[in-house]
Order: sequence, then C-alpha cells, then structure tokens
Amino acid sequence: MKTAAEYLSKLRSMRPNVYSHGELADRDDPCLLPELNTLSTTYDLAADPQHEAIMTAVSHISGKRINRFTHVNQTPDDLLKKQEMVRLCSQRVGGCILRCMGIDAVNALSVVTREMDDALGTEYYPRFLKYLEYFQENDITGNCAQTDVKGDRKLRPHEQPDPDLYLRVVEKRKDGIIVRGAKAHNSVGPHAEEIIVLPTRALAKEEGDWAVAFAVPGDAEGVVQLCVPKGFRERRHLKAPLAQFGGADSLTVFDNVFVPWDRVFMCGEWQYGGRLALLFALYHRHSYTGCKPGIMDVLMGLVSLVADYSGLADAQHIKHKLADMAAVAELVYGAGIAGGVKGKRSSSGTCIPDVVYCNAGRYHAGMNIYRAFETLVDVAGGIAATLPYEEEFLDQRTRPYAEKYIMRRKGVSAENQHRCFRMVNDLAGSAFTANKLIAGLHGGGSPIMEKIAILANYDLEARKKLAKALAGIVD
Amino acid sequence: MKTAAEYLSKLRSMRPNVYSHGELADRDDPCLLPELNTLSTTYDLAADPQHEAIMTAVSHISGKRINRFTHVNQTPDDLLKKQEMVRLCSQRVGGCILRCMGIDAVNALSVVTREMDDALGTEYYPRFLKYLEYFQENDITGNCAQTDVKGDRKLRPHEQPDPDLYLRVVEKRKDGIIVRGAKAHNSVGPHAEEIIVLPTRALAKEEGDWAVAFAVPGDAEGVVQLCVPKGFRERRHLKAPLAQFGGADSLTVFDNVFVPWDRVFMCGEWQYGGRLALLFALYHRHSYTGCKPGIMDVLMGLVSLVADYSGLADAQHIKHKLADMAAVAELVYGAGIAGGVKGKRSSSGTCIPDVVYCNAGRYHAGMNIYRAFETLVDVAGGIAATLPYEEEFLDQRTRPYAEKYIMRRKGVSAENQHRCFRMVNDLAGSAFTANKLIAGLHGGGSPIMEKIAILANYDLEARKKLAKALAGIVD
Amino acid sequence: MKTAAEYLSKLRSMRPNVYSHGELADRDDPCLLPELNTLSTTYDLAADPQHEAIMTAVSHISGKRINRFTHVNQTPDDLLKKQEMVRLCSQRVGGCILRCMGIDAVNALSVVTREMDDALGTEYYPRFLKYLEYFQENDITGNCAQTDVKGDRKLRPHEQPDPDLYLRVVEKRKDGIIVRGAKAHNSVGPHAEEIIVLPTRALAKEEGDWAVAFAVPGDAEGVVQLCVPKGFRERRHLKAPLAQFGGADSLTVFDNVFVPWDRVFMCGEWQYGGRLALLFALYHRHSYTGCKPGIMDVLMGLVSLVADYSGLADAQHIKHKLADMAAVAELVYGAGIAGGVKGKRSSSGTCIPDVVYCNAGRYHAGMNIYRAFETLVDVAGGIAATLPYEEEFLDQRTRPYAEKYIMRRKGVSAENQHRCFRMVNDLAGSAFTANKLIAGLHGGGSPIMEKIAILANYDLEARKKLAKALAGIVD
Amino acid sequence: MKTAAEYLSKLRSMRPNVYSHGELADRDDPCLLPELNTLSTTYDLAADPQHEAIMTAVSHISGKRINRFTHVNQTPDDLLKKQEMVRLCSQRVGGCILRCMGIDAVNALSVVTREMDDALGTEYYPRFLKYLEYFQENDITGNCAQTDVKGDRKLRPHEQPDPDLYLRVVEKRKDGIIVRGAKAHNSVGPHAEEIIVLPTRALAKEEGDWAVAFAVPGDAEGVVQLCVPKGFRERRHLKAPLAQFGGADSLTVFDNVFVPWDRVFMCGEWQYGGRLALLFALYHRHSYTGCKPGIMDVLMGLVSLVADYSGLADAQHIKHKLADMAAVAELVYGAGIAGGVKGKRSSSGTCIPDVVYCNAGRYHAGMNIYRAFETLVDVAGGIAATLPYEEEFLDQRTRPYAEKYIMRRKGVSAENQHRCFRMVNDLAGSAFTANKLIAGLHGGGSPIMEKIAILANYDLEARKKLAKALAGIVD
Repeated sequence: MKTAAEYLSKLRSMRPNVYSHGELADRDDPCLLPELNTLSTTYDLAADPQHEAIMTAVSHISGKRINRFTHVNQTPDDLLKKQEMVRLCSQRVGGCILRCMGIDAVNALSVVTREMDDALGTEYYPRFLKYLEYFQENDITGNCAQTDVKGDRKLRPHEQPDPDLYLRVVEKRKDGIIVRGAKAHNSVGPHAEEIIVLPTRALAKEEGDWAVAFAVPGDAEGVVQLCVPKGFRERRHLKAPLAQFGGADSLTVFDNVFVPWDRVFMCGEWQYGGRLALLFALYHRHSYTGCKPGIMDVLMGLVSLVADYSGLADAQHIKHKLADMAAVAELVYGAGIAGGVKGKRSSSGTCIPDVVYCNAGRYHAGMNIYRAFETLVDVAGGIAATLPYEEEFLDQRTRPYAEKYIMRRKGVSAENQHRCFRMVNDLAGSAFTANKLIAGLHGGGSPIMEKIAILANYDLEARKKLAKALAGIVD
Repeated sequence: MKTAAEYLSKLRSMRPNVYSHGELADRDDPCLLPELNTLSTTYDLAADPQHEAIMTAVSHISGKRINRFTHVNQTPDDLLKKQEMVRLCSQRVGGCILRCMGIDAVNALSVVTREMDDALGTEYYPRFLKYLEYFQENDITGNCAQTDVKGDRKLRPHEQPDPDLYLRVVEKRKDGIIVRGAKAHNSVGPHAEEIIVLPTRALAKEEGDWAVAFAVPGDAEGVVQLCVPKGFRERRHLKAPLAQFGGADSLTVFDNVFVPWDRVFMCGEWQYGGRLALLFALYHRHSYTGCKPGIMDVLMGLVSLVADYSGLADAQHIKHKLADMAAVAELVYGAGIAGGVKGKRSSSGTCIPDVVYCNAGRYHAGMNIYRAFETLVDVAGGIAATLPYEEEFLDQRTRPYAEKYIMRRKGVSAENQHRCFRMVNDLAGSAFTANKLIAGLHGGGSPIMEKIAILANYDLEARKKLAKALAGIVD
Repeated sequence: MKTAAEYLSKLRSMRPNVYSHGELADRDDPCLLPELNTLSTTYDLAADPQHEAIMTAVSHISGKRINRFTHVNQTPDDLLKKQEMVRLCSQRVGGCILRCMGIDAVNALSVVTREMDDALGTEYYPRFLKYLEYFQENDITGNCAQTDVKGDRKLRPHEQPDPDLYLRVVEKRKDGIIVRGAKAHNSVGPHAEEIIVLPTRALAKEEGDWAVAFAVPGDAEGVVQLCVPKGFRERRHLKAPLAQFGGADSLTVFDNVFVPWDRVFMCGEWQYGGRLALLFALYHRHSYTGCKPGIMDVLMGLVSLVADYSGLADAQHIKHKLADMAAVAELVYGAGIAGGVKGKRSSSGTCIPDVVYCNAGRYHAGMNIYRAFETLVDVAGGIAATLPYEEEFLDQRTRPYAEKYIMRRKGVSAENQHRCFRMVNDLAGSAFTANKLIAGLHGGGSPIMEKIAILANYDLEARKKLAKALAGIVD
Repeated sequence: MKTAAEYLSKLRSMRPNVYSHGELADRDDPCLLPELNTLSTTYDLAADPQHEAIMTAVSHISGKRINRFTHVNQTPDDLLKKQEMVRLCSQRVGGCILRCMGIDAVNALSVVTREMDDALGTEYYPRFLKYLEYFQENDITGNCAQTDVKGDRKLRPHEQPDPDLYLRVVEKRKDGIIVRGAKAHNSVGPHAEEIIVLPTRALAKEEGDWAVAFAVPGDAEGVVQLCVPKGFRERRHLKAPLAQFGGADSLTVFDNVFVPWDRVFMCGEWQYGGRLALLFALYHRHSYTGCKPGIMDVLMGLVSLVADYSGLADAQHIKHKLADMAAVAELVYGAGIAGGVKGKRSSSGTCIPDVVYCNAGRYHAGMNIYRAFETLVDVAGGIAATLPYEEEFLDQRTRPYAEKYIMRRKGVSAENQHRCFRMVNDLAGSAFTANKLIAGLHGGGSPIMEKIAILANYDLEARKKLAKALAGIVD
C-alpha cells in the first residue's frame, strides 16, 4: 500500500494539464491542496492499525492486503465494510472523501466486462483483471468520468448537432482507439492518477461509437481539465482540520485522446451501455449510504455544539430537530445495510448491492440535504452569515469588540465560541456550502434518477396481483 | 400447532365479557368476525407448507416446530424472518395482522424478567419460561394491554386524582395480586386467549404499585372489554377477500382482577417499568417495519391497478408517485433489516433488534401514512368517496346506469372496474380508512415516541466530539 | 327570501328520483337529512338580522334584497363578502356548506353567456338573465353537475367507445334539446331544486355535441340520481349540532333528458367549453378560500379543546401545531382576499376574482388537508379511533367504566370529556372523515388542476425577461 | 429627493468606522460597492418618471413628494404600494433591496412614540416628528440595529454575566444618554446615513436600562462596525447587472456612544419594549411579502431560461416545479395584500398591517426559501457548481473547449449559454447563495418568530367556542 507522501510524489511527476482561473496549475498548487488533503486521508487512515479492519481488505486476485479503496467487493460483508469505511472517512474530513469514484467504476467494470464476455465472446474481463492488478498493486486513486455534457437535452447522443457533446470513438486503430468529447462534474479530476471513462446512459443500436469505456492516466496526451477547486476560506491563524479539506471538479476534455486496447473495456457494445452506466451509479449510490450519514454525523455534532455553547443544551425543539436528522441519517445508512445484506454475486464473483435499497437510501439523502443544512442554520441563526471575518478577531483595533460580543454560555472561551461559529460559517455560509448542497442533491445521480432506478427494479406487477386477489378480481 | 378451527372453538368456549354497541357480544358475533378472520389467517398460513420456513420456527425451549407468532427470537435471522412473516401476512389481509401484539410482549418479558432476576435476585424468569411453554404448546393468540388511559396528561400516575387512571396493584395476597385500572386501544382484545399486561411508561420510586406486569385469560373474572370493531362495509353480493378482514379495539377494564403469582412477571420493580415498556415498544416497532411495507405493497398494487383500468398505465406522474411510495416502503423495510442484522442477544439469550434503526423505520412509516392514503385518493379521484353503493349495482332500476358509467379502459369489464373502485372506496373512503390512518400514526407509538427513543439511544456526544475535532476545539 | 321550511316543502313536492342503498328515497329520508340540515342553515342564517350584511345582497337586476347564495358578484367587495359568508357558514356546520355549487355555476354563466353573445352573436345572455331572475326570486338552491365520468382517461370525449361517457346533445329539436350522459360527484344532488350542467373541459372542433350547458329541475324527467349520503354516526342520546350536518353525492344520470331552449346556455360553441369549465372552477376555488379556513377554524378549536381537557393547554408542541394550522388557514384566506381585491369586471359586469390567487389558495388548502386531520389525530391520540361506542356510555353495565376512564383534567365532567372526544371520533375516525379528506383534496379541482390553472395564467415570459436582463443577455 | 450621486457624496463625507478583512474601509471601497449599488437603485428608480406612482409618495407632514422609502404609511393603499415597490426593486437587483430596514423602523417608531405619549405623558412623538421631517427632507437611507448579540440564550438581558450583551443605557445626562452594547446582523450598516436602534425583545420591570430606542448617524463617535460584505464573484469580462449587486452585514458596536435627547425615542419605558420590537418586525415582515415574491420572480425566470436553453422548454416536470414556485410566491404576496387591505390606523394615524397575514406570509416564505434554491439547482444540474471559471472562457488555451462544450439548444450562442449558467452559478453556487439562504430563513425573524407572533394574535378561544358549540358542550 502507498503512503500519502508517495501519492503526492506520484502527482508531482504528472504532466501539468489542469487549468484553473486562467492558470496551468500544478497538482499541488495551493488552490488544489484541499482536495489533495482529503484524498491523502484515505492513505493515512489505511496505514493506521486501528482502522485496518475497515480500511483494508485482502485482494481476491493477489491475496495481498490492499487499501479497501482498490478492492472489488466479493461478499455482502465487503459491502457493509465499504459503507462503514466511507462513513468513517466522511466523518474525518467533514465531507465527501472523493476516492469512491474510481473504485466504484472499477467494481462496475468487474461485473460488466465479464457479462459481455459471457454473452458476446469478447475478451474484456481478462484485460480488466490485468488492469485491476495494476490498480491494486499501485494503490491507485482513480476518478470516474461519466457524465457527458449532453448538449440539447431533448436529443439523443447521435442526434446532437455536434456529435462530440457525448464522448465517442472517432477512430479505431490497430493499437487502440481515438476518443473525443468531454465529461463534466469530475471530482478528483486533478488528483486522479487514472481517469476511468464510462458511458452516461443507455444507448441505441446506432450509437455504437458512444458505447465506450476505458482508462487513461490523468495526464494522458490530449486530456485537458478545466478545474474548479472547492475549499473553505483560508484561515490566517485559527487553523482547524476542517478548513484544510476540500475538493475539485473538472470539466475533463478529451481532445482526440489515444487509448491502447489493453485499457479499453467496452467499444461498440451499445447493448451494455446502460448496464454499465447504471452499475457504476449503483455502486456509487451505495457509497452515498455511507458518506451522507457521515456528513450528517458532523452536522449533528455541530448543531449539538452550537446548542451547548449557546446555553441551549436542553432545548427540546433543538433535540427534536436532532432526532429528525438522526432519523434521516440512519434511514439512509439502514438502507445501505439492507442493500449490502441483500447483495448478490454476479458471474464474475463481484457482489452487487441491492438496487432498490441503495437507490431508496440515496434518494432519501438527496431529498433531505437542503433540509439538513437548513436545520444547522435554523439553530445557529444569522451569525452563520454575519460572523465578522477572522481578521477582525486578530486586528487589535477590533479584537476586543469581536471577542467581547461573541461570548455566550459561561465557561466557554471566546476562542472556542469563535471556532464553533467559524465552523458554522464554513459549513453553512460559504461558497463551499453551496457546492455541498449541489453535490448532495446531484452527486451520484439526482433524486429523479433514483426514482427511475427504483421503478425499473420494483415488481409492481406482483403488487398489482396482491391488490387484484384482495379485490376478488380474476382475469 | 393449532388450526384456525381449533382457535375458533377455543374462543367459543370463553366467558362472554365483550360489550359492543350496548350488547354483550359472542366472540364470533358477526361484528367481530373481521378481526377473527384476520387472526385465523396466521393459523392458516402456518399450516401451509409453502410458507413453513417463514411462518414457523423451532422453539428454543422445547425444540418443537411452532408458529413463529409464539417464538422468542434467538438470532438476527429470527428477526429478519419475523419481519418477513409480518409483511407476508399484511399483504394477505391488506392491513394489520394483529397477532404481533402478544408475541412482542412475550419477547419483551423474556428479556426483562431475566434482567430483574440477575440484578435483584427475583425469580421471574423461570416463571416466565413456564408460561412461555404453555404459550407455545397451545399456540396462543395474545394481546398486549399496555396503554393506560392516563387521565390528566400533566400528572404522573401517582398524582392522578383517581389512582386507577393508571392500572395498579391494589392488593397483594399470598396466592396472587389484585389489580385495578383500564388499558386502552387494545386491538385483538376480544380474540385474545391471553391478555398480557405491561406498564406504559417509566416509573418513579413512589410508583411501585404501578410497576406491574402479568398475564390473564381474556375472559378472566373482572375483565370487561368495551369493544369497537373495525371492518369494511359488508358486501351483499360482490364478495372479496379484502372485505372480510378487519380488527377490533377494546378498552379493557380490570375491575379488581385476581392474578395468581405464577402469572405475575413484575410487581413493584419500578426501576424496570420503563425498560419493559420500551422493550415491548421496540419489538412492536420492529414488527411495524414488516407490516407497513406490506400495507404499502397493497396500496401500490391498487394504485397501479387504478391507473391500468383508467387507461393511464404509462402516466409518468403516477409512476413517480409509485416510486415515492416504494421509497417509503423500502426505507422502512430496510431499516427493519438493519435493525435485525444489528440485533444483540440479551442475558436471557433473546435477540433484541437495534433501537435506532427500528425506531427510525417506524417513525418514517408513521410520518408517511397519511401521505400514502392521500396518494391513493390523488390517483383514484373523487370516486373514492362517491362510488354508488353496491345496491345500486344490483337493483335492476339502476344497474344499467351504474354499469354503463363505471366503464373506463376498453377490455376491462364493468364488474372488474366495480371491484377495483369498491376496493378503493373500502381502503380510502370508509370508516375503516380513518381507523387505518389513526392506527398508522399512533399504533406501536406515535412518531414523537420514536423520536424520543432515537434520542435516548443516539450518541450525540460522540458526534459533538467529531465536530470539535474538525473545529480544532480542545477542551 | 325563502325560509328553511319553505325550502323543505319545495323538496317534498319534487318527484322521487334519488336512489340510495337500493331504495327510491324521499328527499327528506332520514339518510338524506344531514345534507338537508346543512343546506337549511343557509336559509336560517340569511334570516338572522345579525348576519344580514354578510348573508344577503342586493340584486343588480331586481334591486331586491336576496340571499347572497343567489347573487352575481358585481364588485371586489361582493367577492370579499362571499368569502366571508362561506367561512361563517362552514364554521356553523363544521364542514362544507354545499350551496356554493349552484351560485358559482350561475356566476360563471353570467360571464360566458355574454362573452359568447358578444363574439358570436348568440342570444344566451338575455336568456340567462331571465333564468337568473327566477333563481333569485325563488331563492333557489342549485348544484353544478360538471364532472363527466370520463371513461378512458387517455381518450378525448369524441374518442370514447361509448360517446355518452361525456354528457352530450343527442338531438336538437325545435323546442329544445335532448341530452344523454352522467355527471359524477354531484354534492347537493338530492336537494338541488335546479341542476346546472356545465362542460368539464376544453373541447375540440369535432366536439360540438359535448359543448352544452343548461339547467333542469332536480327531478326533471329522465334525471336519475344514484346517491351516496354522508353523515356522522347517528347519536342516540348525546345530541350535538355537529352530528346533524352532512352531505350527499350523486352520480346524476341524464337518460335522454329534454331541455327547453330557454334553459339552454351553450349548445355547440365548443370554443367556449374550456372557458366556462374553468370559470366555474375559478368561482368555486374562490369559495374554497372561504370554506377551508372555516373548517380549519373548527379543527383548531377542537385541537385546543382536546389540549385543554387533557391538561395540556400550555404544551408548546401543540401550540406550534396550532400555529401551523393557523398559517395554512390564513394563507388560504389571504389568497382569497387578494383574489377578491384584484377581481376584474367582465363584459357582463360580473366581477371575476383573480385566477392566480384563487388557485394558489385552493392549491394550498388541498395540499394541506390530510395534514390538518393528521394534526388533530396527532394531538388527540388513539382514542380518535377507539372511543367506546355511545351505547357503552348509556348501558348501565358499562357506563361506570366508560365514565370513570374517560376522565382527564380535573374540573371537566365525564359528559364533556365524552362530548369532546365523540366530536374527535366523528371528525377524525369516521367514514365521513375519509369523505372529508377526499373532498378536501379533489373538491373544486385537485391540486394538479390548480397548478395547471396557475401556469396558464402566470406570465413566465416576463419573468424570463427579468432573468435575462440581470444576466446581461440581449437577444 | 436625493440622487444616487448625492447619496454617494454624503457617504464619502462620513468618518471611516467600518472594518472589514482587517482594514478600515471607505464606504465606497470596492468590497462595499455591491451594497452601495443596490441601495443606489432605490434613488434611481424613484427618479424614473415611469415608476413615480410606486416609488414615491406624498408626505403627510410636509405635503411634499418624497421617496416612498421615507414614507410613513397612512392608508391600506400605502401598504399595498409599499409592497409593490419592494417587489419591483427586488426584481431589479435580483435580491434584497436593503432600504426597507430604516423605513420599517421609522414606521414602528411613528406608532409607539405616540402610544407612549398617550399612556405615559411622555413627549416622544413630537420629537419623532421632527426627526421624521429631517429623514424625509434629506431622503435618508437608514438601517435598523435591532438584534442584540444575546449571550447565553437561557438568560434574560439583566441576568447576563456581561450586561452589555444586550445594548443598554449606561448613563443618563442632561443633554442625552450614553449607550453601550452591540447589534448583530445589520445589513445596510456601512451605507446607513442613520442607524436606528430598537429593543430586540419584550422586557421586564428590572430591565429599564435595556428599554432604549434612538437614532445616530452611521459614523457617530463610538460606533464601530465589523462588516462582512456580500457580493457575487467579480466578473472580468462578462459584465452583467446581477453581478454588481450585493449587501453587507455589520456587527455594530456601540462603545459608550452619546445620543442627544432629541434623538432618543424610548428610554426606560420597558413596558413598550416588546411592542416596539414586534412592530418593527411586523413592518419588516410586510416588506418581506414584497421582496420574497420579487426574488422568486427572478428565480422562476432563471429556471425557465435554463429549461429553454437546454431544450426543455416544454418539459412537464419543470413546469410543475415552476407552478409550485409560483404558488409560494403568490401565497406570500397574497398574504401581504391581505395584510395591507386589513391594515388599521393607530392613534398616530399610521396604518399598521394585519399581524396574522403578514406573519403567515413571511413564515411561508421562510419555510420555502431553501426549497426554492433547491429547485433551481434541481433543474440546472451539477453545472451550478462545476461551471469552469470565467477565465477558462477567456484564456485562448481553454476557450475553444469551454465554448464547445457549453452548447445546448441550437440557436443559443455560447456566450448566452455561458451568461445563463454563470447566473445560475452566482445565484446557486456561490458564497452569496449561502448568504441568501440564511437571510431568507432568518432575515426579518426566523419562522419560529412568526409562529409566535401568529399565536399571540390569533383568537384560539373563539375557535374553541366554535368547537364547543358544535360538540354541544355548555360550560
């Protein structure tokens, strides 16, 4: 397993291809550090013996102990542990741990490459296994570039005026393929050693060129990232762990990128486009049943802290709000557990979590994300937005005022009151807040996508039969 | 195991003590048949080889195969099967299966009697085991008389002007005890072979007289039931399985009832009053994670059927409503699965489901019960309330009109359209509807009770620590 | 103006054509009394000098003082008074006052008959005015038969296998027209002296036969009503005003009914079908902004009473629920006020309330009706469903128990506790409850219909321009 | 009336006392320009003849035409126009217009100063009128410093360890008073020519020192502002009106500030503390019934634009979301209209809007603010958070990619697509978003405060009587 330091030096060795704010940024550029710090946590925690059982696994191909973020789930217990790992990591960084992207894509490929081989006689699965060996051996952080920019939403991929609005194969060569297009909303973009590209939707017969899945290094020739980093306001003096964590989202452009065949996992099998797209979504929604409760844990802790520091530790109305948050968190986590327990093995041996439970869990999380932040603001009050800047707490002309008027419950120092409400301000009153809301709604698939997934996998006919039987209807 | 017929003859042999509508009613009085039919289903299904794995279990005390409704859960798997059984039964009767009451009380007693013995040196557990043997051997249907009438809600039991407003021990004798009071909302009342009485709340030191748990036959001397039966409008001609199922709720009065010591399971141990009350609630809420999804299955089936018969099988807005219902059903069921999987064995060996998941599941069900019926009405329209009476479909003066104007989608007969909307009318437009809503909200504990239970078992301090760590707060 | 007694004798003089429960029922049949009592209230209140300003108006055609339930609104103030009248009446009967049906239809006709004459040169408006004179002179109670049974929901009127599934003209004669079809959900059916028939939807060119509006006496030849009466459980001894009020819904069949030309207000003008349908809906939704708050007033009063009688008059959580109910009631009523204030006069001089406000108000009421009853049940508890029957409070064998265990707060007699919870049981635990929920959702148009009406009348383009201007977009 | 230019030069003449980011900032410092631009709009619009009827009024004391933002409402029509003005202004700046603060405080003072004089024989009202003359004559922009920092939330003002945690009089002198304390969340702080200070809550007898109201220039000696400016990300090239508007919130510290008696409007009359606090809140909530619909107008326009540009102009699910937004906007606006129409004149002649309607309107707005932004994000998708920076659209290395992949519906240029989604990013994905959410929830009083106001002014007893009458309960 790799250390965080080794991960960093790997990133430093990569070709610069990340643009942000008009600059070609190094992967350890200050504006990209928040995401880097978040991802490094996954290496640090795996190295901590206390968390070994959760953070590591034994590879089913090599038998070696690996970071669980590179593991292909073999059993329901693997799924339960994955969920637990994600919750732990989210609690540590106070947000998305990011690294699920790559491994969820890998899990999806581990199922579908085999299914294609079984059905079509292709040879993707052995190729995939070789790639997996590399992925595990090098403790790779990958991302998943799935969502196309999509152009006119009413038109299918092949109907777009510009066919590149969905990423596609523009040339097949003896040694590999050339692809063109762009994938949006790619978190981990700048810090992905490997970018794993999957189709974004079900495809029609005439859309074989868009049925493509592959992996390329994050700095492959022709890959250009337009990146929007996400982090909290930088602290001058009042350092805090939370403040150092963040993310980054790239619009990843593939400008005639060459992919050698041993890294191509689908090329033309349009019938499997939707299957692969949905399987990644499924693994990723399963991940959400871990991270959303983890983030709720932090929010609930902060609400409790605010209440405590304000002299309201016993206020019934706050307790009831906390109970509501807990109910959301545990319904989501419970759905993930059910999704894991009811997981089934695919032909490749990979364990697939239950579709309905994972989607119901992700759906519930998505439907309640705005409300969760609303509750924090509700309890914390306007100071979430109006807390004077850190500088006012430092400058000696204003510090006496800032510290005098931040005081609340006796026994809590001005610095701790400040720290508490600075965290409120970061989580609820910053640009990153807006981002967290948006990611909480759309990340891993918007609520509407989960409804569609539930409907597609729910046996309504069986339920109609129940109703008919009770009504005495004989067809 | 008993048959439904044996159950009926046992009921017929009991002393009449059930009043309804000013009459002293037999236990198979027509107005009480709907509940009887529902309960009989639990005997019929257990006798059906197809359902043996779910409907029966092996007794941990006798080693014999028993109806699972008399089983004390030993493992998480028992809890999962219990949940599955309840869903199955609810699907069959289109509503509450009722028989959980007694077995959930028995499970709670199996834990607390042992805990009292361990801590206080009492001898309740052996006494309980003997009673359990009788309960399993005779395949008993019991109920749980828990909720006191409570009088002034601001006063504690011992502060009430009339101390009987919470049931209490009024005399301790050599051979047993005398109790007085009344328990409200007792479903299964008239058809309970055994009434199991538990405390309704946590008790204070001066409330030892109210700390009492025991079992008496449903027709014991001094027991008087004021009963409100629940069923659908009687069908003249258009018989349907649904229409024959129902329930009944008794206000069970204990007018100086004598209970021999071998049926007394708590008497004065006020410290365990709350524990026993909450444990029954917990088992019962676990049951709800099975029955509410079962009822939702029927409602979803009926919504689908209405859509189909109206020519709207493909309507997107109805599909999305169905997806919402499915999400509620499976979040509740998923929470129950998590509650079972995370179950822990108590000192007596009984497996206790996880408090937080079961309460979160029951809470979500309760918060969405009105909405579920609202959806049915939303899709079915005003006919849920205005469908002409069955007689208008029978009388030859009106039949041609009734049958002409009930027609919707081509290919569905007038009778089937009628059957479908008669079921809608039963489920959404009848007195039983109102009852189902109320029971769905309050049965097994109102949403506020689940919030309290979650808060009492949720480690908010640990979450506060997470927040402090991220904020950089060192105490 | 007519008295309630005169109204009754008019009803007694009508030809029996109302079927219910397989019987041809008199209009003062016991099962129909609840609706009759409700409607009579509109005569009694108008005769009460205390309410003259609200309950009566001055006819713009005759200059005479008339019952406001026969008035055509001339000014915004008329609309405000109409709303106030409806709230007053609803408070008095604890539910729908029913008589809006007819007058709302009359108001819609007063606008559209003139508009057709203006545009098409027809002569409906003078005909209408003559009918209005009769309507006002005789203080008529009418209903509005609008909603067709509609058959296959995917097909238009002229596409139905049976063309009668939407009511239509089957023959035009020199002296009048012959119509056939059926109208559903007709409250006031049995007690309507006049049935006013309007189209239910927008119509296409080929649907001229379905573009028909007219009035016939409630007992006209060929009119057959299949009626479902609605009322509370009959009281034996514990008489209470609430218990005597109710309603009735007819499926009104028109079996080749002849309508003379002076009672025909649209016949073939398909272009105005939707206009007339929507205008009735608009007036009726305006009425809802009066009645829903009136019903909420009763529910809030009952919740307060339950809290008071239970010793919880000061409970914060109940107060907050009441505040939520008040907010709903007054948002709806406030929308109605805005709808009245912003009312505009049509070409006939009739004042039309604002479409958006009335629809927003009705929408909000419909979206919250289930929640309102849920709150009552939430506060009242399981007794809403399990209160022993009145007979158990009368029979001397059970009366001591019933009265002993109903007691709550000191100082409130057993009878009053009983009366309070009997009312809870009536409003929240009866068949009429289910009906009130359904009517509250669908009556006057389901929430989806109000959304459609809002969209059709809301200037989104103007708002898009606002956004473009702020974004700096120049087309 | 003043021009925007005159307002600016007035601000430039003021003593610097605003700290932000550790700097003592000029009032036209770049970081403060967004708020300044917003406030200037109120001068520009008043000078526009097209808006004269709405933006100006005739002073009831001078008879001169004045900016309506300095007018004391005399009639319901004034209140309706005020509401209309606020909606207009909010549409223009795409957010809070800010200037209501001061005039709402002035209106509250116009009522309570007179009531105190009437009841206590004080002479505040003449003093106030003189101040009003100055306020109108100079077309003053004021703010309202109301919310104290409040310290321990469980303790009353006089119980706080530090008595200054609620602002108070520390000395009364012959020529005036000395006050000390701090007021939080003061928007308009840096650009208020006058700061109007009011009590924040009801006060007890021993809290006379905290019962104080007065006005001071924004740069009075001893006034120190710790300011947090709010604005959108600065545009390099893609200028747009929206991007230039913003706000600023000060923590306003009063460090032994001297106030001459002619600017003191309450000093010791603790009985009127709550009255004054609530009256300001009432006027301000009335303002909210104008601005929230204005902001919703912009959001609805943007949602429509996004749909249009994405090729989804006809998508039903988006239309229904728009209808929901419209319903919220118009329920809020309708409640404001009702609040105005039902306004009553106080003893000073000032018209007070109805408490219940204004609070119900503000409550509904507050309860739906998070949901409104959620809808925008729901429709716009992840690009709300991940839109590449403006620089990537400018830099020639990345511009071709940015412009190629932003394309959606044919016929909309890349620049317009960019402008549209840049606005989405500003409104939904920025730090200002978080601020708008928080202000939308808490500004003018959190939802809980409106519930309390409704309860305090709602006649529940009358409603209880209705219920008793219907239940047949005679006390």
